Amino acid sequence: MKIAAYLDRGRPGVGIVASDLQSVLPLDLPPADLARGAQPVIEMLVAGKALPPTGAPLAIDAVQLLAPLPRPRRNIFCVGKNYHAHAKEFAGSGFDSSAKSGGDVPAHPIIFTKVPECVIAQGEAIVIPRAVSTAIDYEAELAVIIGKGGKGIRKAAAMHHVWGYTIVNDVTSRDWQSRHQQWDMGKSFDTFCPMGPWLVSADECDATKTRVRCWVNDELRQDAQTTDLIFDIPTLIETLSAGITLYPGDVIATGTPVGVGIGFKPPKYLQPGDVVKVEIDGIGTLENPVR
Amino acid sequence: MKIAAYLDRGRPGVGIVASDLQSVLPLDLPPADLARGAQPVIEMLVAGKALPPTGAPLAIDAVQLLAPLPRPRRNIFCVGKNYHAHAKEFAGSGFDSSAKSGGDVPAHPIIFTKVPECVIAQGEAIVIPRAVSTAIDYEAELAVIIGKGGKGIRKAAAMHHVWGYTIVNDVTSRDWQSRHQQWDMGKSFDTFCPMGPWLVSADECDATKTRVRCWVNDELRQDAQTTDLIFDIPTLIETLSAGITLYPGDVIATGTPVGVGIGFKPPKYLQPGDVVKVEIDGIGTLENPVR
Repeated sequence: MKIAAYLDRGRPGVGIVASDLQSVLPLDLPPADLARGAQPVIEMLVAGKALPPTGAPLAIDAVQLLAPLPRPRRNIFCVGKNYHAHAKEFAGSGFDSSAKSGGDVPAHPIIFTKVPECVIAQGEAIVIPRAVSTAIDYEAELAVIIGKGGKGIRKAAAMHHVWGYTIVNDVTSRDWQSRHQQWDMGKSFDTFCPMGPWLVSADECDATKTRVRCWVNDELRQDAQTTDLIFDIPTLIETLSAGITLYPGDVIATGTPVGVGIGFKPPKYLQPGDVVKVEIDGIGTLENPVR
Repeated sequence: MKIAAYLDRGRPGVGIVASDLQSVLPLDLPPADLARGAQPVIEMLVAGKALPPTGAPLAIDAVQLLAPLPRPRRNIFCVGKNYHAHAKEFAGSGFDSSAKSGGDVPAHPIIFTKVPECVIAQGEAIVIPRAVSTAIDYEAELAVIIGKGGKGIRKAAAMHHVWGYTIVNDVTSRDWQSRHQQWDMGKSFDTFCPMGPWLVSADECDATKTRVRCWVNDELRQDAQTTDLIFDIPTLIETLSAGITLYPGDVIATGTPVGVGIGFKPPKYLQPGDVVKVEIDGIGTLENPVR
């Protein structure tokens, strides 16, 4: 199942994307729920409730996609340095304020957050905050959507708490990330979290071996399999839920593969006019212009 | 003005605390708003709307205080190492994974977050998550409540965006904070954010020179003036809003003074049965048992 949030002639809607990806079946939800994107649908499914009836299909090209979770219920959890090749690339970039000699691969998951309000949709512009930073980088990421919540979830049970997946571009101001030591600010600038194009339920995507690619304009910058993850999804959920209760709709961006802009010498930062395209097999494509 | 959220015979309420602190005047808000604590009141005041009429006063001792913002609208922004004497204490504690030689005083504000769901009220228990950490520490902090939102707010205008203040105890798992490099997890365990006892509007508290004290049981552990802040409130607001739009009800915990548990050798961690009391002049007292 794929859940999309969209605007249909200016009105918010939430629906099920048809298997041919050509149309969306609108769910008959109360207006207050429609503004919450896929969040109420996940809550209903987790609670074992039947979804409301769907209306006549809308052509996918006739609606404007919103982020599937336009305002996540709280800051998005994100994982830092979680692909082997990227961890090495980042530690060697000069931007990793926590880099220690030989410390390329973290011994424990590194978790930071992005504010919910920096989420933007497929097609919306990533805005370079020129007055404060031009060292803006992309990070293509597979994001986990929590279904059933919980605390103290063990690895063996963790996948039962995964509702599904989406794509997140963990846009980052590299100078802020480095200068301020803790990363939340440089990761949370307005427009810094493209998300979409929709949510895909776990049965439709084998996240353990999924190809993640990112192009800037026509240049393929990132091309990796999630098999290169340092901490797999069950480990991330066990770690996060050890002390923090997880809730339906929580988002965990699992980290980015090698090939980010600061991996190049000199760094290849995003420039106005660029287009960043992230593609994850089994999910789809998330494309955003830069201005 | 002091705004309190409370339960009155099991029903949520929001009201104005009388100047003698002996009673609270209930605000006649719609039920959906009452569950949001002081948030809708701040939004109304910022929008220039008149507050609804108040009902008959309730004795403060007859209600159960809730956190004034029981679920902040997004993760709480927190400032790390923001008092001179504490920055030195923390860098020397062995728990600061980012400590560099001579790097006691950060050159730029360090911002991390706590999840909204870890907020608890005056009197509620801080729970030591024994299965995963017993290195639990207190951090008494003055917290800023944003009124008028904005982006790119300059220092000179920053205080116009402060609605007021409250007390936050930035409870921390020291081993998680150190081990996972980024601090959000070790700062966000369930119950790790006592907040209260109420919000106080900016005209009633001169935050530039306010005494912050913290007792564990009868031992005074922290006793400082906010004059020791490394980055003052206008600087924090200018920094945070440079790339991130701030909203009414955002919470910024401004950092903790010297005297935390890991400042002692050996460290004095919180133990079941302890009581942590934070007092900030002009605001009040926030007291929480530990279990």
